[in-house]
Amino acid sequence: MGKLAKKVAMVGAGMSKFGRHFPTKRNPDLWVDAWIDAVNKTDNGIEPKEIDACYVGNFTADLFNHQGHLGPQMANLVGLTPKPAPRFEGACASSGIALRQAVLAIASGVHDVIAVCGIETMTEVPTTIVTDALAAAADTTFEYPAGATFPGLYAAIASAHFKKYGTEPEDLMRVAIKNHKNGSQNPFAQMQQTIEEIMKSKRKRYESQGRDVPDWKDEMDFLKSSSNPYIASPLRLFDCSLITDGGACVFLASEEVAKKYTDTPIWIEGTGQGSAALSLHDRDNITSFVATREASRQAYSMSGLGPKDIQIAEVHDCFTIAEILAMEDLGFYEKGKAAQAVKDGETALDGSRPINTSGGLKSKGHPVGATGAAQAVEIFKQMRGIAERNRQVKDIPEITLSHNLGGSGGSCVVTIYKR
Amino acid sequence: MGKLAKKVAMVGAGMSKFGRHFPTKRNPDLWVDAWIDAVNKTDNGIEPKEIDACYVGNFTADLFNHQGHLGPQMANLVGLTPKPAPRFEGACASSGIALRQAVLAIASGVHDVIAVCGIETMTEVPTTIVTDALAAAADTTFEYPAGATFPGLYAAIASAHFKKYGTEPEDLMRVAIKNHKNGSQNPFAQMQQTIEEIMKSKRKRYESQGRDVPDWKDEMDFLKSSSNPYIASPLRLFDCSLITDGGACVFLASEEVAKKYTDTPIWIEGTGQGSAALSLHDRDNITSFVATREASRQAYSMSGLGPKDIQIAEVHDCFTIAEILAMEDLGFYEKGKAAQAVKDGETALDGSRPINTSGGLKSKGHPVGATGAAQAVEIFKQMRGIAERNRQVKDIPEITLSHNLGGSGGSCVVTIYKR
Repeated sequence: MGKLAKKVAMVGAGMSKFGRHFPTKRNPDLWVDAWIDAVNKTDNGIEPKEIDACYVGNFTADLFNHQGHLGPQMANLVGLTPKPAPRFEGACASSGIALRQAVLAIASGVHDVIAVCGIETMTEVPTTIVTDALAAAADTTFEYPAGATFPGLYAAIASAHFKKYGTEPEDLMRVAIKNHKNGSQNPFAQMQQTIEEIMKSKRKRYESQGRDVPDWKDEMDFLKSSSNPYIASPLRLFDCSLITDGGACVFLASEEVAKKYTDTPIWIEGTGQGSAALSLHDRDNITSFVATREASRQAYSMSGLGPKDIQIAEVHDCFTIAEILAMEDLGFYEKGKAAQAVKDGETALDGSRPINTSGGLKSKGHPVGATGAAQAVEIFKQMRGIAERNRQVKDIPEITLSHNLGGSGGSCVVTIYKR
Repeated sequence: MGKLAKKVAMVGAGMSKFGRHFPTKRNPDLWVDAWIDAVNKTDNGIEPKEIDACYVGNFTADLFNHQGHLGPQMANLVGLTPKPAPRFEGACASSGIALRQAVLAIASGVHDVIAVCGIETMTEVPTTIVTDALAAAADTTFEYPAGATFPGLYAAIASAHFKKYGTEPEDLMRVAIKNHKNGSQNPFAQMQQTIEEIMKSKRKRYESQGRDVPDWKDEMDFLKSSSNPYIASPLRLFDCSLITDGGACVFLASEEVAKKYTDTPIWIEGTGQGSAALSLHDRDNITSFVATREASRQAYSMSGLGPKDIQIAEVHDCFTIAEILAMEDLGFYEKGKAAQAVKDGETALDGSRPINTSGGLKSKGHPVGATGAAQAVEIFKQMRGIAERNRQVKDIPEITLSHNLGGSGGSCVVTIYKR
């Protein structure tokens, strides 16, 4: 694996509000929302005529919306016809892959400016169909006929991690509490409440309905109650990310033209991608993802940086256990030590290395194909010092990382950014 | 649009037999067949450990096989885990896009050798579901609810071309006759008979069944009979490409390492990609595809070559009318003049510029996501002088082109090769 032949920078980024938008808004509308936000966040503005290509990340509009071939459609909506408009897919890592391929395309010398689109509308179909469609990202020859959908697969991963490292349900709950707290500070997030606020509003509703009000001592107590039901033991409702509609847009530019758009480009210092056998039974180990280890190895190697250099990170918390695995597989912590770091507050907004300042997939929402690009949007905001409400980290970070996972670890893209 | 920072070569290529394989073989099996064929056609052999990434083109295993996230699965089957394994989609241009992105990735300096996979299994579901799935490549907000599936869309395109340029049904039939003739010389093709042979075997069957034998004078007469029923007027059965299962594999390498694999690399001199509004009603003109014009403009510009330099071409004849459009939009002929060239035999195997020596999508078959990579396989064989049976063109070509279209012209990738 070699170095990038040319330097590439992120010069603008934005996103739609994440949430339940169907039928008011569908993929085309959410993409236009994201595009407008990204144009507004590009210091000197940007025009369609200056953009060479539209790289679209989407997991499966085929199954969610019976619309394939999304590239040309998204390009056309923002005035980019007849420019190249490929679509990229790697399950929930789809727009992380689109971002990576755009970096490579600019480094190849062929393009100077690329608009990266991440897009997904999941609420058009009922939840059972969403779960069925998502299962197509796992192995559908063996896992799917056995009834294994994603909550079940991640439950197996959590159970194995519990057994091997002594991780406990409370460790996962702390991840959820942290990410909801961050998400409550993100106006673009699907969930706007902390777990404490959810607990209080639930208490209020019970009172107004004249029902017995449960005696929750605190948020942890609430999360251990039947108000946080099991989805697939040991994973409960608040361990799972959300079903979300949303779009995200990132503008990448070569070194030569980046300065036209901004005085403070965010450089892509490293990019890496890894893969693994789709089915868990084909892997040696399910408490660690080889795709994450490989993707981060490549990205660290390309950038000459290591885990210690990373000041903040957006990691792929499709389930709370996935955040724990990511922190370990990225080398932030030794295997089995990440849970303690969460407990010690190291990953909180005011901790030594904040994780998922956006709220993560858990609270910001997880429109699967849009997630990778949306992680880059949060990185952009934090590195520019424009994160909304009270979520901007104190010292504007110089070196950051995003980690975008596909399926139960079948794909992973890691990107390292530098100011 | 700039030049490639590094030269890239095709060093090996192969494919599975195209045809109806389900349930004996599915995507994983067909990919392994293609891989083995490509390894065997790489002069000095190639090992998985030497390959940096697996780039997978597939239109919609989501809808055909309820299996998304194909990248890691295909990579794992040939020993490429945990390397990068993204999937690329642009409807029927999916593996043309995979090929193009692999070229850019090698030119970026990040990878040296990439295995490109094109794969599709369409016969797992009934034909009506195939047509429904393919329709997801058109606009499903307006065209699909109006009942417009692909034969209907291309019928509209053909009608408009007939009206504007005086093209006639016989012109389309000549394309079919030529491509079946070429396909009969390709052991990997789905159809192994010329139209004349099909006519004769039909005659024989009628006789053996004691039925009246129709009085077909020649193949053209046969194609005008009720034995060639209308699918969507003016398009008849033999104007349509096939529903096919198949896989194709192409090995690309950087200039530095290409010589390790062969003394006669096939250089990628130009690559271009274009897009258009998905729906026909959003376009100014449906007798010409802007995506093809844009993709070829880029590829010609990058290579410094023009239409006159191209000695043979594989073009995307998903319907016979599409071959006519391609020949014109690629600049081989003026608008409205391609039909006459077919009539004059210029595009035949022994003509001045043979088109679709493989048999094309019409006769070789059209496993949609595999088609772009399979076009490169035919180019590889012709440029190496190893095309099977009697289909090798007389003078081994030095400069060739492949043209891979998505949907009703929504996407297009054009690649120019040089020996």
